[in-house]
Amino acid sequence: MTFSADYGLLSPSWAGTAVAHATSDGAFTQAMLDVEAAWVSVLAGAGITSTEDEEAVLTAANVELYDLEDLARRGQDGANALIPLLGDLRGEIAKNFDGTSVVHKGATSQDIIDTALMLLAARSGAIILADLMRAADGLNALATAHRRQLCVARSLTQHALPTTFGLRAANWLSGLIEAGQRLQAALESLPLQWGGAVGTLASLTDSFLRHDDDAALPGAEAAAHYGADAAEVAATVRGLVAELATSLGLRTAIPWHTNRLPITQLAAALGDVIAACGHVANDVLMLSRPEIGEVSEPHAAGKGGSSAMPQKQNPVLSVLIRSAALAAPQHVGQLYLSAGTADDERPDGSWHAEWSSLRELIRLAGGSVDKLAQLSNGLEVHPRAMYRNAALSGDLLVSERVMSRLSSIIEGGKKRIQELVRQSITEHRPLSELLREAIPAERFSTEELHRIFDPANYLGQADSLIDSVSDRLAEWKES
Amino acid sequence: MTFSADYGLLSPSWAGTAVAHATSDGAFTQAMLDVEAAWVSVLAGAGITSTEDEEAVLTAANVELYDLEDLARRGQDGANALIPLLGDLRGEIAKNFDGTSVVHKGATSQDIIDTALMLLAARSGAIILADLMRAADGLNALATAHRRQLCVARSLTQHALPTTFGLRAANWLSGLIEAGQRLQAALESLPLQWGGAVGTLASLTDSFLRHDDDAALPGAEAAAHYGADAAEVAATVRGLVAELATSLGLRTAIPWHTNRLPITQLAAALGDVIAACGHVANDVLMLSRPEIGEVSEPHAAGKGGSSAMPQKQNPVLSVLIRSAALAAPQHVGQLYLSAGTADDERPDGSWHAEWSSLRELIRLAGGSVDKLAQLSNGLEVHPRAMYRNAALSGDLLVSERVMSRLSSIIEGGKKRIQELVRQSITEHRPLSELLREAIPAERFSTEELHRIFDPANYLGQADSLIDSVSDRLAEWKES
Amino acid sequence: MTFSADYGLLSPSWAGTAVAHATSDGAFTQAMLDVEAAWVSVLAGAGITSTEDEEAVLTAANVELYDLEDLARRGQDGANALIPLLGDLRGEIAKNFDGTSVVHKGATSQDIIDTALMLLAARSGAIILADLMRAADGLNALATAHRRQLCVARSLTQHALPTTFGLRAANWLSGLIEAGQRLQAALESLPLQWGGAVGTLASLTDSFLRHDDDAALPGAEAAAHYGADAAEVAATVRGLVAELATSLGLRTAIPWHTNRLPITQLAAALGDVIAACGHVANDVLMLSRPEIGEVSEPHAAGKGGSSAMPQKQNPVLSVLIRSAALAAPQHVGQLYLSAGTADDERPDGSWHAEWSSLRELIRLAGGSVDKLAQLSNGLEVHPRAMYRNAALSGDLLVSERVMSRLSSIIEGGKKRIQELVRQSITEHRPLSELLREAIPAERFSTEELHRIFDPANYLGQADSLIDSVSDRLAEWKES
Amino acid sequence: MTFSADYGLLSPSWAGTAVAHATSDGAFTQAMLDVEAAWVSVLAGAGITSTEDEEAVLTAANVELYDLEDLARRGQDGANALIPLLGDLRGEIAKNFDGTSVVHKGATSQDIIDTALMLLAARSGAIILADLMRAADGLNALATAHRRQLCVARSLTQHALPTTFGLRAANWLSGLIEAGQRLQAALESLPLQWGGAVGTLASLTDSFLRHDDDAALPGAEAAAHYGADAAEVAATVRGLVAELATSLGLRTAIPWHTNRLPITQLAAALGDVIAACGHVANDVLMLSRPEIGEVSEPHAAGKGGSSAMPQKQNPVLSVLIRSAALAAPQHVGQLYLSAGTADDERPDGSWHAEWSSLRELIRLAGGSVDKLAQLSNGLEVHPRAMYRNAALSGDLLVSERVMSRLSSIIEGGKKRIQELVRQSITEHRPLSELLREAIPAERFSTEELHRIFDPANYLGQADSLIDSVSDRLAEWKES
Repeated sequence: MTFSADYGLLSPSWAGTAVAHATSDGAFTQAMLDVEAAWVSVLAGAGITSTEDEEAVLTAANVELYDLEDLARRGQDGANALIPLLGDLRGEIAKNFDGTSVVHKGATSQDIIDTALMLLAARSGAIILADLMRAADGLNALATAHRRQLCVARSLTQHALPTTFGLRAANWLSGLIEAGQRLQAALESLPLQWGGAVGTLASLTDSFLRHDDDAALPGAEAAAHYGADAAEVAATVRGLVAELATSLGLRTAIPWHTNRLPITQLAAALGDVIAACGHVANDVLMLSRPEIGEVSEPHAAGKGGSSAMPQKQNPVLSVLIRSAALAAPQHVGQLYLSAGTADDERPDGSWHAEWSSLRELIRLAGGSVDKLAQLSNGLEVHPRAMYRNAALSGDLLVSERVMSRLSSIIEGGKKRIQELVRQSITEHRPLSELLREAIPAERFSTEELHRIFDPANYLGQADSLIDSVSDRLAEWKES
Repeated sequence: MTFSADYGLLSPSWAGTAVAHATSDGAFTQAMLDVEAAWVSVLAGAGITSTEDEEAVLTAANVELYDLEDLARRGQDGANALIPLLGDLRGEIAKNFDGTSVVHKGATSQDIIDTALMLLAARSGAIILADLMRAADGLNALATAHRRQLCVARSLTQHALPTTFGLRAANWLSGLIEAGQRLQAALESLPLQWGGAVGTLASLTDSFLRHDDDAALPGAEAAAHYGADAAEVAATVRGLVAELATSLGLRTAIPWHTNRLPITQLAAALGDVIAACGHVANDVLMLSRPEIGEVSEPHAAGKGGSSAMPQKQNPVLSVLIRSAALAAPQHVGQLYLSAGTADDERPDGSWHAEWSSLRELIRLAGGSVDKLAQLSNGLEVHPRAMYRNAALSGDLLVSERVMSRLSSIIEGGKKRIQELVRQSITEHRPLSELLREAIPAERFSTEELHRIFDPANYLGQADSLIDSVSDRLAEWKES
Repeated sequence: MTFSADYGLLSPSWAGTAVAHATSDGAFTQAMLDVEAAWVSVLAGAGITSTEDEEAVLTAANVELYDLEDLARRGQDGANALIPLLGDLRGEIAKNFDGTSVVHKGATSQDIIDTALMLLAARSGAIILADLMRAADGLNALATAHRRQLCVARSLTQHALPTTFGLRAANWLSGLIEAGQRLQAALESLPLQWGGAVGTLASLTDSFLRHDDDAALPGAEAAAHYGADAAEVAATVRGLVAELATSLGLRTAIPWHTNRLPITQLAAALGDVIAACGHVANDVLMLSRPEIGEVSEPHAAGKGGSSAMPQKQNPVLSVLIRSAALAAPQHVGQLYLSAGTADDERPDGSWHAEWSSLRELIRLAGGSVDKLAQLSNGLEVHPRAMYRNAALSGDLLVSERVMSRLSSIIEGGKKRIQELVRQSITEHRPLSELLREAIPAERFSTEELHRIFDPANYLGQADSLIDSVSDRLAEWKES
Repeated sequence: MTFSADYGLLSPSWAGTAVAHATSDGAFTQAMLDVEAAWVSVLAGAGITSTEDEEAVLTAANVELYDLEDLARRGQDGANALIPLLGDLRGEIAKNFDGTSVVHKGATSQDIIDTALMLLAARSGAIILADLMRAADGLNALATAHRRQLCVARSLTQHALPTTFGLRAANWLSGLIEAGQRLQAALESLPLQWGGAVGTLASLTDSFLRHDDDAALPGAEAAAHYGADAAEVAATVRGLVAELATSLGLRTAIPWHTNRLPITQLAAALGDVIAACGHVANDVLMLSRPEIGEVSEPHAAGKGGSSAMPQKQNPVLSVLIRSAALAAPQHVGQLYLSAGTADDERPDGSWHAEWSSLRELIRLAGGSVDKLAQLSNGLEVHPRAMYRNAALSGDLLVSERVMSRLSSIIEGGKKRIQELVRQSITEHRPLSELLREAIPAERFSTEELHRIFDPANYLGQADSLIDSVSDRLAEWKES
């Protein structure tokens, strides 16, 4: 069997996580069975089938009874795996039920598959949100703990101005909250797919029109019944479908066989989560370079080692998160492509191209938040390195401020300051020293000059921005 | 000049549209100037600069004064176009204003560029929504007018069951409404970008700290002022920024220089709009094939002609919409990629890779809804062809119903019906005829049999689904 | 175990194919073991290790001995699966060999993983090329058999001019040959990856420098040896690496840890194969629509059926090929992205993002050619439908010719012909009839007019183009 | 006019470059005119039209005569810009030529547009290759000049082993050569597109069949001519088309209206060039971070400055190259998507989606090599920083070697060394010192120990690898 199954060896960013299990082929098959079973239960509850039928279906709706590899292989014949599964399921039901089961009544394979994927999204989504919240708590703790920790802010890789490590963490958190709220919204509106072969619910509707065909069929008399009860039947149909949605924890919606925006909404939110995690990982990877050394990934037994180089400690959590952030956009794009190429009442290929991208996105999100939760709750912060790096730029780090504060005081204005900056770089002399020489002490006191050059005095709204983000997290958690 | 400018020759899906103009390099430059000018006005309103300064800036904030080609070329030097523009702008201001203008006070180039792109999105978004609404009205009219127009529903390219053309149009509309509402939501939350060099608002904050540097600076005395008024200054800063947001019609937000989820939200919504339009175009392209002929694109002078083949009438609106739907997903993916690769306090390339993809998405959406509005309001519907095509499948079109209704009546059950279906195909005989022979008339009357085979009797909830979608449009328009 | 493995349930386009098996996690693990074993054999052959060591390694290099699920899970710790596998492999070797095995000597995990992926590509590539050749033979047979079969050519969905079905098949074939030749070229240049930790081969080189450390180390005397034999050692190292490449059937290359163009070349060629298959599928899907009906997919037991609609025969082969063609471009893009974001001596995430996209591309190509071989060798062609569809356009199908031939003869020239074309459409009268009335018989004989309107007389170089393509296939097969 | 044109303001990576001009809408229009003109010249050369006609066409084939903005707008009507251009061109010809021009004889709009795009690729490609060669020379000079410059090699962001800066540059060069050779191959096989309306060359063929329609048409007698001369006509047609290809510098090919592999080959090669440049940029961005400081971008007047922060020097060349590397993969993907969704004899949208992605790829490649040529020829290398950074890891940088050399000598073997490594990190003591204590001097001399710890002695094949790459460049230049 070894050569027919995949376990995630090529996907260390999510292999072995709870979400990987919640989206395995087994989990997907169970979800399809769950949909079929839930529908029979709804029908049994409405007296449309017997409890014997229901029980037989519930017993058969167990993934352990089916050969997944064989189902996958047979999936080619009808272009999806539900068709062979349904055949096998009927066989299992027949073992325990004599009559004709109502299983799959009025449904089409797309109803089952789309709904099963929504179930997978819902089940995985709960795990993802929980991990995301743990990650957010970790980031929030970092933002709060290091709110006064001065460090250098970088733009286009170069030192720009001072900031605080707390604000950097708050910025990470800000994106994560935004992404989490979008995912939550997407999860709350996951729709049931239930439309029958072409989205009209024709078969189901038809079964409730009084036609008395079992009742010996008096013929002409039956005619009167037709169409007489459309409104009533519509209400019955709607009611049953709504009940199914409720029992599966999904939203009712008009059939969306070819309107794939429920998928793009989910994809967009998952993409947001992965991107928000990726943002953190990119920074951690940069900050944990030996020459920068402002943070280290949490040390854990067996993590990040290298067999040949015993001193090496790789930031594997961030590497894996970053690899997910590089991979996810293609899958988001894929789902938009499938939405934009849908046609007819069931698309001839674009629907089929959705499945594996949607699952991969869920898994990449699951892997990312799992890793980020570990990362944010164990990140080691190295204040000394932050000071050391800031010192590299010396007092040039506040040149923006010098420019705006002193250009009206110094003779020669902005131009003169630019010359001094260049001199400072070339001669390796502090800018403050050069300025002290250039500006008469009576124009500007040395004390004042020191204050201007104190980076801790040039942090703007760093503090209040951290508060804003923390508050937003608190509000979200309360909601 | 011919060889330095582009006009959209390679992009007929949006060339010449209102959105194309609203997003041109000129429009973008004007938007950057608008942001700079609005900020000076806010500062003037707060008494922070003179009305002379303001007037000089407002006069200079006119795109006609600048050489766009030259700006584009010089943009390489600093990796964005704002840097040379700002230089030229200061030059223009100096022509009318003697003092030091506050223009760009405390801002960074990313503040201006990101905000200008949000303005472009807002301005284009209004056009897109208006066109989308016209397109929606057209689709709604089609759904209503043809709600009883029987036609064949297709899955995986093959005839499946009967449906109505009204329901098909309603399905198109359903996607368009969903997409439109997401775009509206995205447009309503377009954020101002205002954070200064590293997102701390340090420079702006600093300028409000009392340091009295203009006032001859008595030195030590000034010391006491520092930091004393942080809260008050924070309120001032916040107030000014909020005013700027209001004056530009944008939302305030904490700086998002490296948190690009405002961009992905917009991209996702634009992608939804394009996909929803693409869905319609795909169907129209298929339905207007000569052999199918169920619809034709509106005839308009000069549209769709071929110079060599005078009889040819190409569905150019749909072709262009479809080309947009094929192109958009890559750009959506690009913006997710840029979000997921952001780093530092300003990214070293991923930010720069956003601009042209974001504009292209706006344009593709603008072109798509413009074309769809024309298409949906002039689509010609051909009922005769719909009947003719449905007739191709003959009474096999309701085989699903026959299966569920008659398998318990006919001897041999489902298997027997399947045999008759095959016989019907092979011998080109109507299934109803074969069934009439196979089922005794006393079991099932001929009248009843006819009713079963009437496709107009097998439309399920088509009608009520159309109502749901129409209602949703009405609600949206009222909101 | 059900919930931890995937079998391809969401990927019917390749599930169950030979290529799916050849690229499973088991196959990948075996390939990694093969690389380690081949290297030990090379070293044993060169007398660098004992045959006992070699035998122990060969025995241990058997995927059946390892727990793939556990390896996948542990892969997170070092961000790849080779690290835990190597640990387990050493454990297995130790069971049969007492000394210190040379396994993995001088190698790094990227050497093993990259090379193992090249092996997977080579092994799968052979299957893909064989299936592609079968598909090409099928298309060639279609091109030849139907070279005189008139049918309508379509542009932008509309009838344009006559062509032959043989030429359409030849066009399909033309793309497939081109793609196949590119894949063949890519497969022939698959490189070995062998560079050691940072691509310098330092460890391997070092082991061949005479340092006599086992020989009781006389100290100072040993000094002279250092560096004296660099050239000789370089030749030894190069020789061993070349032997490894040969034994694995790969090309030698300078280490490409961060130069990923070997991957993009392979990706591009696989993408070409999938696109060439997709082109055929798109046409078959269109041509097999009931209203067009010019071809049908081969009927095979159990293929294309629908449980609810017994008459339905879905073109599942084409649907699956098309789904692959829609999915592949994202993965091609992914591999270009990873190439363009490579950094350092081993990338921090972009390398990891390659693996699953590369495998998916191989699988999509494998699935596509497998399906296309079935499709092209069993496609049913329906000449009657081709004539019927051509007749829909009537004699307007050659309007281009009428325009160029008769505009100089008819009074009123091109304009007059355009009017007649419009009249022909509006009044449903043949254009030839209208022209007969408009042109005096002495100007143009009726016989001549008939010839002009005979579409079989207006096929241009169709025949010779078919020959060109067939010849190209024959040449390729001979080469 | 400002609001209708784009100049590249949002694309600083290519704005203002030679390739940008060579691919502008004006250049594209000129290329379409060039194709039409070349064809008329071929026809005139063969005596098929008069030199008066030829002269009139050549005069009219001047982009300055046309209103590009208007053409772009009118392009919507027929879904491409050639249709209105052809109308205007005919108008211009008529100003100087009385008869019926043969312009566009037998051609279709796709012939002109595809061929014009190939011309754009050829013209831009020559510029790109020249810049790429300059860039390669720069990298080669770096590789040679710094072949003994020790620096640290990094994997997953962490210090791994020593390498040389020369080898790093050689690795950059290696990718660039490979990409350049692929681009060269692609440029050498750019095909002419010439097939007429549906790829059969019917109209052109027809015009050479003897039908004597100008010769007063004796009617029945003409009949005999038909078809008699197919082979001769085929040779004539082939000859003319071959001449057209030659005159445009393109390869002849069978019509590829729906076989888009010529496009994907070009796209793949352009993508390779951009990725190879991106690889360099990523490393330069990292290496020029202030904390690492191993290289700096060349200083050029006005480059990389920041208006607010006078000390800041941004690596703008690398930023722009990296932004191109992030953007290109989406466009490569787009062209594979268009290839895989082609259908009919001219696709209904996928063809149209190619144009702007193909141009953008050419431009991104053009911008990347332009920037890389500047970068590689002016890169400042800082040996001191390289030593300083290597020193950060101290003697742990060769721990791999220590492990393999000393584990058989030290008591406790590998385990003991790992402990010492940990001790070295914790206690901040050199590993060599700890080893000196742990290994008796008679087992291993101190001199020997020093040699083991000398990173310059652990560079493996760095030198010979540099030679290999340099040689490959030399060979390429000679070929």
